[in-house]
Amino acid sequence: MEKFEVNILGCGSAKPTTRHFPASQVVNVRDKLFMIDCGEGAQIQFCKSHLKFSRLQSIFISHLHADHCLGLVGFVSTLNLLGRTAQLHIYLPKGGEEAFARVIHFFNWEITFQVIFHEYDDKRSEVIYEDRSLTVKTLPMEHRMPCCGFLFEEKPSPRHILREMIDAYEIPLSEINRIKNGADFVMPDGRVIPNERLTIPADPPRSYAYCSDTKYMPALANRLQGVNLLFHEATFCEADLQKATSRYHSTASQAATVARDAGAGQLIIGHYSSRYEDERVLLNEAQAIFPQTILAQENLCVKVE
Amino acid sequence: MEKFEVNILGCGSAKPTTRHFPASQVVNVRDKLFMIDCGEGAQIQFCKSHLKFSRLQSIFISHLHADHCLGLVGFVSTLNLLGRTAQLHIYLPKGGEEAFARVIHFFNWEITFQVIFHEYDDKRSEVIYEDRSLTVKTLPMEHRMPCCGFLFEEKPSPRHILREMIDAYEIPLSEINRIKNGADFVMPDGRVIPNERLTIPADPPRSYAYCSDTKYMPALANRLQGVNLLFHEATFCEADLQKATSRYHSTASQAATVARDAGAGQLIIGHYSSRYEDERVLLNEAQAIFPQTILAQENLCVKVE
Repeated sequence: MEKFEVNILGCGSAKPTTRHFPASQVVNVRDKLFMIDCGEGAQIQFCKSHLKFSRLQSIFISHLHADHCLGLVGFVSTLNLLGRTAQLHIYLPKGGEEAFARVIHFFNWEITFQVIFHEYDDKRSEVIYEDRSLTVKTLPMEHRMPCCGFLFEEKPSPRHILREMIDAYEIPLSEINRIKNGADFVMPDGRVIPNERLTIPADPPRSYAYCSDTKYMPALANRLQGVNLLFHEATFCEADLQKATSRYHSTASQAATVARDAGAGQLIIGHYSSRYEDERVLLNEAQAIFPQTILAQENLCVKVE
Repeated sequence: MEKFEVNILGCGSAKPTTRHFPASQVVNVRDKLFMIDCGEGAQIQFCKSHLKFSRLQSIFISHLHADHCLGLVGFVSTLNLLGRTAQLHIYLPKGGEEAFARVIHFFNWEITFQVIFHEYDDKRSEVIYEDRSLTVKTLPMEHRMPCCGFLFEEKPSPRHILREMIDAYEIPLSEINRIKNGADFVMPDGRVIPNERLTIPADPPRSYAYCSDTKYMPALANRLQGVNLLFHEATFCEADLQKATSRYHSTASQAATVARDAGAGQLIIGHYSSRYEDERVLLNEAQAIFPQTILAQENLCVKVE
């Protein structure tokens, strides 16, 4: 199966601790790297996860709180130091270009590549990135400021054509793509070989949703039906529900409820408040509702499957 | 002896590695904390060194290269999150306020304390901070951009008055300070007790010099005569002398030469280029010239004595 995995670079929240870095992840889709959020120290964590700077395609910023984006200037400065030439696309909410363009320029007045800011509309879900194998859609969150999660979806792949059928029916190279896309094969003598005999279905497309920061949104489950892997913030435990609600954050139970109601394959929780020295309290709470829950931790790599 | 120690938070250079954080240190003088440089991740390292945010007095930035100051916005944001009320003084070269004031404001539009920028003249050595027990002086460096090191000097302490002499001569409380400052004591009967009989000298004032980033400056040794503890950058080893010279950095041998010629008590080297996986090559080179050399490392605490 093609590579599709999520690397956690940081899963703490705003207040620094000795246990966590602030929010940052890297999604690896077929060795193209997409960064989600870029908290302070993301570049150091990127190295620790043995990721390649040259493979980075784009950066997606969920919102403009310090713990989700203050690593951006350093990250861009390092790409510049490494002599990057490819354009870098940064997707972020309105106001993001104003916040970062000047200061990136200040520290990189000689820059070897173009930084292109794309400010998305945080009010509606839209496709903000697309290539041959992937789309990335925004997921409006409910937080104290404009904030979006991101849904990474593989595009459906063509069917697999069976090697032995190519040989048996002497299928010419020129027909292969049509058959992969579902066509039957017509033999030189006019006989029609149905596609189902020649191919097997491709692996179903996989998806990853990143939901941070947000208060509990029951409606999210509908939008994420059948998602393979879900990251959902779980800043607080249920005993601190009131804090969660007033600060527009979620509890571990709420994160698990979204995962359960969406029929997700697996749930990663993170964005831990600094108050929990041992995050197993959050894990236990979530697993009671959705057993396929794991705790995010720095430099963890999770396959989407 | 009063506390005077240096905490290394980061001792790498611009290119990130898994081994080091970028430049940052905290000087602890009698439990007042003074930060020197504030590379990305400084706030995390501050926690790891078990330092107290509430004790921080001021921040001194040597120059405006990314690896020496990109932790500043995050650090100030955290102080704000923690509800600081005391003014924060940031000393930095010209242009520093323009680089940081806007972006600090962007991420802290509700701020609980005043941030006061002081842009120093990088061309001449001057006292930029002074309190009852300490002065901090700039040390102009020779780098690719305006850059200053910093010299922390304790002020001379008054002499220690001997407990048994107070009793023997029935010295009244009102005389104590004068005697500590060198005065003789005149008895009610007119007899003069010389100060040397009543007191012993205070510990001599101690000093710490931070020299980063700079090319080799032979004249520095004169300005730092007798410094107790010297941090000097040693980005390269002698085999890479040409790189050091062209990039306005120093080699480990050059750092050690400055320490030797200044008659320093101890030398810490740091600001290592990412190319050296094992920094003992730098240590060995420096110790051949100045044996009292140690390697900086993250969360190392060195006493000034």
